Amino acid sequence: MSNSEQIFLMNCWYVAAWDHELIDGVKLARTILEKPVVIFRGESGRYIALEDRCCHRGAPLSMGRIEGDCIRCMYHGMKYDENGICVEIPGQDRIPKTMKVRRYPVEERNHLVWIWMGDPALADPDLIVDYEPLGDPAWRGLPAYLHYDANWLLIVDNLSDFAHLAFVHTNTLGGSEEYAYETKAIEIDRLDNGFRVERWHKNSDAPPYLKRVIRDKDAKLDRRNIATMLVPGIFLMETMFSPAGSNDHSLEGTRQFRNCQYMTPETRRTTHFFWNYLHNTDIDDPNIAISLRDSLFEGFYEDKAIIEAQQVLLENNPDFRMRSLESDLALSHFRQVLKKKITEESLQVDTPVASMPSKSA
Amino acid sequence: MSNSEQIFLMNCWYVAAWDHELIDGVKLARTILEKPVVIFRGESGRYIALEDRCCHRGAPLSMGRIEGDCIRCMYHGMKYDENGICVEIPGQDRIPKTMKVRRYPVEERNHLVWIWMGDPALADPDLIVDYEPLGDPAWRGLPAYLHYDANWLLIVDNLSDFAHLAFVHTNTLGGSEEYAYETKAIEIDRLDNGFRVERWHKNSDAPPYLKRVIRDKDAKLDRRNIATMLVPGIFLMETMFSPAGSNDHSLEGTRQFRNCQYMTPETRRTTHFFWNYLHNTDIDDPNIAISLRDSLFEGFYEDKAIIEAQQVLLENNPDFRMRSLESDLALSHFRQVLKKKITEESLQVDTPVASMPSKSA
Amino acid sequence: MSNSEQIFLMNCWYVAAWDHELIDGVKLARTILEKPVVIFRGESGRYIALEDRCCHRGAPLSMGRIEGDCIRCMYHGMKYDENGICVEIPGQDRIPKTMKVRRYPVEERNHLVWIWMGDPALADPDLIVDYEPLGDPAWRGLPAYLHYDANWLLIVDNLSDFAHLAFVHTNTLGGSEEYAYETKAIEIDRLDNGFRVERWHKNSDAPPYLKRVIRDKDAKLDRRNIATMLVPGIFLMETMFSPAGSNDHSLEGTRQFRNCQYMTPETRRTTHFFWNYLHNTDIDDPNIAISLRDSLFEGFYEDKAIIEAQQVLLENNPDFRMRSLESDLALSHFRQVLKKKITEESLQVDTPVASMPSKSA
Repeated sequence: MSNSEQIFLMNCWYVAAWDHELIDGVKLARTILEKPVVIFRGESGRYIALEDRCCHRGAPLSMGRIEGDCIRCMYHGMKYDENGICVEIPGQDRIPKTMKVRRYPVEERNHLVWIWMGDPALADPDLIVDYEPLGDPAWRGLPAYLHYDANWLLIVDNLSDFAHLAFVHTNTLGGSEEYAYETKAIEIDRLDNGFRVERWHKNSDAPPYLKRVIRDKDAKLDRRNIATMLVPGIFLMETMFSPAGSNDHSLEGTRQFRNCQYMTPETRRTTHFFWNYLHNTDIDDPNIAISLRDSLFEGFYEDKAIIEAQQVLLENNPDFRMRSLESDLALSHFRQVLKKKITEESLQVDTPVASMPSKSA
Repeated sequence: MSNSEQIFLMNCWYVAAWDHELIDGVKLARTILEKPVVIFRGESGRYIALEDRCCHRGAPLSMGRIEGDCIRCMYHGMKYDENGICVEIPGQDRIPKTMKVRRYPVEERNHLVWIWMGDPALADPDLIVDYEPLGDPAWRGLPAYLHYDANWLLIVDNLSDFAHLAFVHTNTLGGSEEYAYETKAIEIDRLDNGFRVERWHKNSDAPPYLKRVIRDKDAKLDRRNIATMLVPGIFLMETMFSPAGSNDHSLEGTRQFRNCQYMTPETRRTTHFFWNYLHNTDIDDPNIAISLRDSLFEGFYEDKAIIEAQQVLLENNPDFRMRSLESDLALSHFRQVLKKKITEESLQVDTPVASMPSKSA
Repeated sequence: MSNSEQIFLMNCWYVAAWDHELIDGVKLARTILEKPVVIFRGESGRYIALEDRCCHRGAPLSMGRIEGDCIRCMYHGMKYDENGICVEIPGQDRIPKTMKVRRYPVEERNHLVWIWMGDPALADPDLIVDYEPLGDPAWRGLPAYLHYDANWLLIVDNLSDFAHLAFVHTNTLGGSEEYAYETKAIEIDRLDNGFRVERWHKNSDAPPYLKRVIRDKDAKLDRRNIATMLVPGIFLMETMFSPAGSNDHSLEGTRQFRNCQYMTPETRRTTHFFWNYLHNTDIDDPNIAISLRDSLFEGFYEDKAIIEAQQVLLENNPDFRMRSLESDLALSHFRQVLKKKITEESLQVDTPVASMPSKSA
């Protein structure tokens, strides 16, 4: 798992967990960017993330015990505070200053726990891409997680290209193959940290996942997707279904959804995938959120099958080079943006990633 | 899976599949010589083999859809014709010439589907080693397949040396350990593409697999095996059991079998093994073919256990060098022949394997 | 599995098996120091250990057949004597002198079968660290085995530091966390082949495993452990529980145990772990030995969980360096001793490990 070339963007916020994964004193062991991390809430309620490897003999702290806002390794009893500083060694009075583990800045925003794997001194919470619908009572949804045996960029690629809706998701999220032929992105905004794209599919049938939650299943609709993809792997989308032929910018009679998806590299070949698909109609009916969650799982399993098959083929044939279609403008732009940022970061030798200033309490 | 040294003979025909594996629109994903291949019959009935990796993003075409004699990738909808040329990109008018996958020549002969993994320009169908009993109504048998976790040459070695019948197959295909002591190959013909060997075991009991399909189970027999092994891994054998003491070349009262086995490398450490063991007596009794197939499976599982154990030992100890016995003349000759052919091929820089001329329709 | 640096001490005795593993003609296939070995008892009763790889085609002899004190490979019938010399090749009169496999000296002592993986000429049986309680009728216990997915030195480390009893085994072998705070090794003897350490825990409750086999479960006890660790991975311990406050060196009313544990590397990342925990009270009650064996399994599974987690973290992060505590004096000394011996051995070019003189009958 070592590689001389930098493959991940370090100085940015990644989603590490949903907050519900950390209730009841869970010590979550999660590998992020190929580093072992333990994430937990201290007894004060604070979120804490530390290197999941005791500096003594390398045992995992996630097999340890939470004590206040500290965690104790249950191999030989070393206790670390929320900054990763060793504060107790049973049977030994002197604690060398080198006895510490790395701490990673973490912040919770609207049920998502974000982590900063790079230089802690640069971890500005204002850089977190907060997604307000996740915390807005007008929107409902069920948070979900999938593990992928695939590099996270293959999932980014997937989400960057609506064309796959037509073929991969014909009978689930897409609705018809004509989507690939009859729609075009009307606009691709190249952002310096990703892209924004909008796509219409006019006068079309409701896709299967929508039919399950609406009453008039046969009405023709104008479907509008507005998607934003941001580094390191954040996908946000507004989806609107309006009665066919209604004014483009009217929301009269429009069914709306808000969709967020987060790709966090576990390793270079596996990915943590977090998502929530939110609705704002009939929000007191819990079955709508359940139906949407299940429909999305169904669709994502279709993606997962093909993306994990891709991963195997790419791994077995490192000389293969992917080719781009015209519809790949957005994903090509994203890969360029990310590569540029990684390159810049690897050249910033004046701000070594390895430095680990303690968090001031 | 990359290696600078050429390990496979490329410009020759390998068995890719039995024809029954390709009925009903199957898109068979099979790795051959470490290359991913999809094999299918177009709607015209034609056999088609293509690189199983869309040139766009590397998704497997075997997860795609057959349309006529074309196959469509079901990730973003690219459609390839039987030569691997991309003929449609949904939502895009211009198709770059570089949008193609490799096609592999395939030919069906008597239920076997053969593939040419090397330079297509050299793929002469007359070079296929057709085995006529497979298509002759006078012979019956059930085609079978086994997957080996072992390099194909370990299976070739196994089949090249009848001595193992005595010890590995004492109670199945062999019949007694004396076979190893009392018989000798009367003749080894060194061919420039393999060898031919003949071996008698006179005045012996019927081996267990034969007893199951004959009535006089106690008669003494003269057993005669005439085997041919050809590059890259083709084993053909005539087996005759005559009443003990009958004239060597009379077929009066002789029970005959025809046996073909094909070793096709999946990777350097795994093998596709195809075989059929044919009989020509009581051919209207289907239980004879079933009994023979089951007996051969029983025997091949004995081989598989020891050969896969060999593979593990050889992999774990790359410095180990095998030693030859006198009875290994045939297999040593075969390995020399194959090595010579591979070396010659790797030196033919004027005919690059990588060239991919399209098949003329 | 090859490595230019010598990682194992070769010229010493390792435990290869319990004698009960070799009854009834078992041909035990066991990898030791990354070498495949077959161990069996010849029909004379003699213990024999050979390279488990026929010199002909590399098939495992452990799939073969014992004949007298010989073993026959059941692939092509080659027969080897107890020195590994090939003495029969079916169908071939001349046997080349190079036809042999390596033999490894083996010796049985008090139910343990010891093997010498280095130069056989140096295999002095007097160097075996015999443990007499294993054969003494005054002591009872049940021999046991565990397989570890971890380097053997991580288990040595574990046993070298009593502090882990407090945290890993609080509710099984340890009894309380105060053990870590209130006890100190009173003495560490640095031996040139390991160490000896003694540790008292006075006026303490009986640990759970002891409570299960004594009547007065509430009495306060003085616990005394005297442990010896010897290269390559031999752990011997006397444990005594005396009524609290009794004279340190009196054995009046003392409950005693004898404990031996043996770590034999299978590979650099996996270990064979043999042990027996012996008692000398109520030895006619078989349930005591059963209870102690089960308690020890319970405790060792606690160790195994944390040690195998350590192994994964260390493998995934080869740059990580363990740090030492004051309580690691013993294990640090042991690692130094072992490293010194391995270095000395690798420099003794005059006595090549590869030489294989035959054992004189």
